[in-house]
Amino acid sequence: MSDRGQSAPVRVALLGCGTVGSEIVRLLAEQADDLAARVGAPVELAGVAVRRPHRHPELPSELVTTDAHALVTREDVDVVVEVIGGIEPARTLLLEALKAGKSAITANKALLAEDGATLAEAADASGADLYYEASVAGAIPLLRPLRESLAGDRITRVAGIVNGTTNYILSAMTVSGASYADALEQATRLGYAEADPSADVDGYDAASKAAILASLAFHTRVTAADVHCEGIRAVTAADIAAADVLGCTIKLLAICERIPGSDDGDPESVSARVYPAMIPASHPLAAVDGAFNAVFVEADAAGQLMFYGQGAGGAPTASAVLGDLVAVARNRVIGGRGPRDSSYASLPVRSIGGVPTRYHVSLEVADRAGVLAAIAGEFARHQVSIAAVRQTGGGAVDGNGGARLVVVTHTAPDAALASTVEALSGLDVVYGVESVLRVEDLGRSVSALGVTG
Amino acid sequence: MSDRGQSAPVRVALLGCGTVGSEIVRLLAEQADDLAARVGAPVELAGVAVRRPHRHPELPSELVTTDAHALVTREDVDVVVEVIGGIEPARTLLLEALKAGKSAITANKALLAEDGATLAEAADASGADLYYEASVAGAIPLLRPLRESLAGDRITRVAGIVNGTTNYILSAMTVSGASYADALEQATRLGYAEADPSADVDGYDAASKAAILASLAFHTRVTAADVHCEGIRAVTAADIAAADVLGCTIKLLAICERIPGSDDGDPESVSARVYPAMIPASHPLAAVDGAFNAVFVEADAAGQLMFYGQGAGGAPTASAVLGDLVAVARNRVIGGRGPRDSSYASLPVRSIGGVPTRYHVSLEVADRAGVLAAIAGEFARHQVSIAAVRQTGGGAVDGNGGARLVVVTHTAPDAALASTVEALSGLDVVYGVESVLRVEDLGRSVSALGVTG
Repeated sequence: MSDRGQSAPVRVALLGCGTVGSEIVRLLAEQADDLAARVGAPVELAGVAVRRPHRHPELPSELVTTDAHALVTREDVDVVVEVIGGIEPARTLLLEALKAGKSAITANKALLAEDGATLAEAADASGADLYYEASVAGAIPLLRPLRESLAGDRITRVAGIVNGTTNYILSAMTVSGASYADALEQATRLGYAEADPSADVDGYDAASKAAILASLAFHTRVTAADVHCEGIRAVTAADIAAADVLGCTIKLLAICERIPGSDDGDPESVSARVYPAMIPASHPLAAVDGAFNAVFVEADAAGQLMFYGQGAGGAPTASAVLGDLVAVARNRVIGGRGPRDSSYASLPVRSIGGVPTRYHVSLEVADRAGVLAAIAGEFARHQVSIAAVRQTGGGAVDGNGGARLVVVTHTAPDAALASTVEALSGLDVVYGVESVLRVEDLGRSVSALGVTG
Repeated sequence: MSDRGQSAPVRVALLGCGTVGSEIVRLLAEQADDLAARVGAPVELAGVAVRRPHRHPELPSELVTTDAHALVTREDVDVVVEVIGGIEPARTLLLEALKAGKSAITANKALLAEDGATLAEAADASGADLYYEASVAGAIPLLRPLRESLAGDRITRVAGIVNGTTNYILSAMTVSGASYADALEQATRLGYAEADPSADVDGYDAASKAAILASLAFHTRVTAADVHCEGIRAVTAADIAAADVLGCTIKLLAICERIPGSDDGDPESVSARVYPAMIPASHPLAAVDGAFNAVFVEADAAGQLMFYGQGAGGAPTASAVLGDLVAVARNRVIGGRGPRDSSYASLPVRSIGGVPTRYHVSLEVADRAGVLAAIAGEFARHQVSIAAVRQTGGGAVDGNGGARLVVVTHTAPDAALASTVEALSGLDVVYGVESVLRVEDLGRSVSALGVTG
């Protein structure tokens, strides 16, 4: 029991009152009785910090303040919920709150991915709770399972669709054969993409989430800067069609992998990366359409797990925040604290060049004898093994007497694959490299096509 | 900090050392360093209670005992892990452990579904932890998300495939058109079904899990006796084919629903039930094949969520137990305790007759004018609305001049549907009721067929 007794209310300061914040306010009121029963004490709103109070006539005026710094350290505040987003002032406010012994809940993926360590240290120093379930995959309970349910297991991979905007665009391209530009236009019109879609389509949003997931899954520290990041702007309708031939679907994946140490003395390391990749159409992630999120987890003992749900939106995100709030408030009432961030493993992050991947390369080539030998020789010179080769369109491509050649490789270090592609583009039998996409088996075999190399 | 200091080991008594127990012993040794880092103290095996020590030559002999009662109350034991199964002696042992202030972890669905309240009260009385993630859906983190991640939300439905044996059998029938008997024989041969498959195929295993899920999801107490339970023995190849016509797949579902109170003064209630049902082939649960488990959750704010993974087996179940063990051990080290069972809502359980469901009824009828009118009249008399009617095989069924009529209803109280079917079987134009299956839309519309009634 805390010194305030079981029935003293737990008081919450809310920072930000946009889409998510206003849902939190609504649910705190609507669910008040249930929350009190679950926590063992009433959960009350102590104040809401906003920049423009006149835009929030729905809030009781005595709760509204523009002075967030004063609010987070106020004596009568127990828990601070941050849904402002961005690095500053969110970081400073959360640090002030944690230093003052307030528990903190944040949905701020960018901040956690850039500087989660500083927040975690501040929480440890004061013994306060720091929860952030809403920062990745919205309402899907994902971080708590990784941090707690799988705490007795050894997670080897986390791979998921964690950005709804790009999944909506890629789904639309897959279903209708639309171009990237047309699918983006549709997503913007329907409100699935923002006016400036860069953070989504260039993969930065997914990269922040990958950093958070890798840190939790592998008990180490991975920041956004450690995450290799490629977006979906370059994905074409032809790529989507090529994936289909291979029995695959293209998804923007956030992939976090544990890479075993080698006999040569390379230490165990982790990889965190974001890029569009071909995945087997039979994989559960391939069926995740539209703005939904899903994350696939593999662990030594648990095997394969998948978590699926809504990754964004006011109400789903608020659900995740309130789940954290119940936990934090309950810890306040019974005088305990939740599990802290665990980064004891301190694993190095492997740069993309050293990560084993597979490539699907589409080339425009001369249509004459010896072409395949020249190309296969270039792969061999870079020690990249070819899984399958398929030629299409002989003599008809662009009317220049060329053919299209698709090569799917076996697994090789990404740097070797990239060098191979660079060398191929210098061959005189290669008129052009049309596209390069990675293939991620995710534990299922991708059907070979055409001639097996 | 506990009085034993951060580095004093947390000592574990293991009750039972079969498939799951031996995996726990293996993982405790293999992951010792990681577990210690995550807990903040070493996790040590203090003893293993087994019935036949000579069958466990792999265990250090000083750890083995046949006196489980002495082990669970031993001074040097902090946590008791029960993987014996069954009601007794598991219940007495867990109660003795909890009363002695030991934290308890159990995978025992039968015991939790029959008498979870007694265990929860014992844990509350002594302030000890009681965790049981492994009791439902094996390695899938499901109970912790329900109990914690969604604690700030209002769950309205939990519907899932929670028994791998029956899902394997139904999948095999769907893929190959096999009969129930043949699919069961195959499942037994491959080790997916036990020699006596009753607990699985009659639905009792799923019913225990439904009781646990409903209790957690709705913050109330539901026992196995409250769960309406039908197994899959009566499902025929014809049923599977009929489902396919409707764009559906047959799955054995555990369904937990919140039923709103009515204007007539019926209080809000819950339903927990297990039966084979037709679900839309487009629903994510329909794609869950073989021995996998998956659970679909709907909540007011979070929307639709799905959890997927391996629901049984030694290693997956051990993963769930060890996740609980890390949580419990961490609570010991930092002197806190985890969330307790919350059953404040005390909602009544609606008996199956009062639960709104939909039926798919297949009838053998006379092939003459007026038959449909007679049958439709019987539905109307019971105030059951017909969604669709389809006639097949006119004049050819069994050479008796009959036809087959399929009726799909709209939602009605199960009792009204059952009475309708009983009345139909008394009509002289009805030669026989071939099959009755429930249809569960799970939020998606099931395509109407033939004539819409």
